Amino acid sequence: MTIKKRTLKDHLDTPMVLIDLDRLEKNIGRLAEWAKANGKNVRPHIKTHKVPEIADLQLKAGAVGITCAKIGEAEVMIEKSRADDIFIAYQIVGEEKIRRLLRLAGHPRLKRLSVGADSIEVAQPLSDAARRRGMKLPVIIKTDVGYPRTGVPSGKPTLELARKISRMPGLTIAGLYAYEGQVFEATTSADMRRLAAEGAGRLLSTVDLLRADGIPVETVSLGATPSSRFTVKIPGITELRCGTYIFNDQMQIRYGSAKEEDCALTILTMVISVPARDRAVIDAGSKTITSERSSEFGVFGLVPGRPDLCFTNATEEHGMIHVTSPRRRPKVGDRLEIIPNHVCPVMNLHDEVVAVRDGRVEAVWAVAARGKIR
Amino acid sequence: MTIKKRTLKDHLDTPMVLIDLDRLEKNIGRLAEWAKANGKNVRPHIKTHKVPEIADLQLKAGAVGITCAKIGEAEVMIEKSRADDIFIAYQIVGEEKIRRLLRLAGHPRLKRLSVGADSIEVAQPLSDAARRRGMKLPVIIKTDVGYPRTGVPSGKPTLELARKISRMPGLTIAGLYAYEGQVFEATTSADMRRLAAEGAGRLLSTVDLLRADGIPVETVSLGATPSSRFTVKIPGITELRCGTYIFNDQMQIRYGSAKEEDCALTILTMVISVPARDRAVIDAGSKTITSERSSEFGVFGLVPGRPDLCFTNATEEHGMIHVTSPRRRPKVGDRLEIIPNHVCPVMNLHDEVVAVRDGRVEAVWAVAARGKIR
Repeated sequence: MTIKKRTLKDHLDTPMVLIDLDRLEKNIGRLAEWAKANGKNVRPHIKTHKVPEIADLQLKAGAVGITCAKIGEAEVMIEKSRADDIFIAYQIVGEEKIRRLLRLAGHPRLKRLSVGADSIEVAQPLSDAARRRGMKLPVIIKTDVGYPRTGVPSGKPTLELARKISRMPGLTIAGLYAYEGQVFEATTSADMRRLAAEGAGRLLSTVDLLRADGIPVETVSLGATPSSRFTVKIPGITELRCGTYIFNDQMQIRYGSAKEEDCALTILTMVISVPARDRAVIDAGSKTITSERSSEFGVFGLVPGRPDLCFTNATEEHGMIHVTSPRRRPKVGDRLEIIPNHVCPVMNLHDEVVAVRDGRVEAVWAVAARGKIR
Repeated sequence: MTIKKRTLKDHLDTPMVLIDLDRLEKNIGRLAEWAKANGKNVRPHIKTHKVPEIADLQLKAGAVGITCAKIGEAEVMIEKSRADDIFIAYQIVGEEKIRRLLRLAGHPRLKRLSVGADSIEVAQPLSDAARRRGMKLPVIIKTDVGYPRTGVPSGKPTLELARKISRMPGLTIAGLYAYEGQVFEATTSADMRRLAAEGAGRLLSTVDLLRADGIPVETVSLGATPSSRFTVKIPGITELRCGTYIFNDQMQIRYGSAKEEDCALTILTMVISVPARDRAVIDAGSKTITSERSSEFGVFGLVPGRPDLCFTNATEEHGMIHVTSPRRRPKVGDRLEIIPNHVCPVMNLHDEVVAVRDGRVEAVWAVAARGKIR
């Protein structure tokens, strides 16, 4: 089906990912304002949306550039969006990928390509390849400030790595970045503020170590969305790489960083079966909404305005809605809109999404960087 | 990157989905043999692979047709595979979808299109639309034999629905189908045999009710893979719709229906960071392997031959491997192959997969029915 502009939302086929443009613009504007008021740069992570048109809206609102996870995402964005300053917040390993990275770095439209590194093993082949081409690749060192994923430990180990990288002929050190994922352990707002401050503190004291050693540190970058309302105010942090803020989701509501009315992405679904008094089944399962469920409530998503409907189970093509008020039980053919638990992997399932304003289709966007896992 | 034939597996870029052709053919052959020996039809569910070339291998091995969940999948398969007998095991609801269904039913290459229904609300619009076009659409009634998803309850409610559908001018009743998902609650092989027999028993006694009422029931179809070794032997069942058997996965190993050496799908990944003594990070996270983890062990997949490596956590682009033997700790650049917990949603993340034999690429397959959620 080709989706025509001006189609009423209620006439769309299901399941369909809807983007509420008013909410999207509000979410973009909110972070842009906070950042401006506090002298911070925004370099949004496009992993959340993977849509060039949305990247352009972020850039228009003042983002200094974009963040990608994979080279394939950056390749799409340089061709299809206006982004000309891209940071690949990932360790690029292996000959094939380094070749692609350097080819991308030489793209005529690109002003700057920077890349992450958290070890000599990652940095050395990058430097060797860049040097052979007479290039100096800006590297931002990934430092671990308390979330056990990647990153050289903050403090002295980061300093030692920075010293070694600063002597590598193909690289220049452009800054430090961290992902303060520990904020997702917060149970209260005060807790989140404390965890964010602790993570930022480790990052900033590491920056001090490097500067005292004569290593220039331009970018000091943090990433998480739910704590961005706190990190944006911390002096010394220069950049926020938030991704999820653009749409928000059930998780962001849980962490107090969004309300239901801030959620710009919903999944329009249809009831296909009502086989029991307490169960309605929708046409969106884990292949439409992922199998990520709320760690607190166990549900796969929220049905806005319908607390009587609990999205308690999902198999690949079926979503099971537990009906708690049989008098309001949905019927076959009814449409339900769902706010997913976690939006980022949802976008990675869909080839296109529909941008909606005032209940009508305003645009159909290809999720052009979907599936770019390499 | 264009992937060349004969490329060594170890030279492929990562992450990459690999299909071991010897294992794939063995899996197809095993079910085909069981079915032949027991006089059953195989109508594999292509949701697991979504690859026309694999559907053709199943048909070549004797499958009577294929099962799809969505019209979009069937549209791809009729164009790109040799399938000419398609069952859409799903409730088709809404004008747009019914129009597409009937257009598909008239496809010149298609010998037969059948579709599921579990209520009057689903059947009536199908009948109305088929009648207007002078068609008789074969309907297979979905009956619930103990797994709370869709399906009219087995026994008398199914008989009542069948009586009504048999009077609808645009439809013919072609049989009954059920999904015996309760077998996933089994903790032992004996338990699974019992649960499968109970589910099949409910289905067969419902068939008896319909036949006693003069309603012909041709197809009597069950679906689950882990219990197929038992259901294939149950008299009266005419058809198996298994999907997962084609690849197998950690879940099938857990349920005793496969061994590690029966798993035909693996994800080739690369270690990109080893930031701690007990942690290696690979370039495959939930956007490559999904966020489905073993309900028993909590891991996202197995690393064959490496019980010292536990895939304990995954974020979107990172897989965290807990290293239990520091002396064998992987290094940056090492390649690891992972058997995912659940293969079906994995295929739905990837645009192409690589078919491998004797360590070399034999074919690159587009996952042509990926993302066909409507």
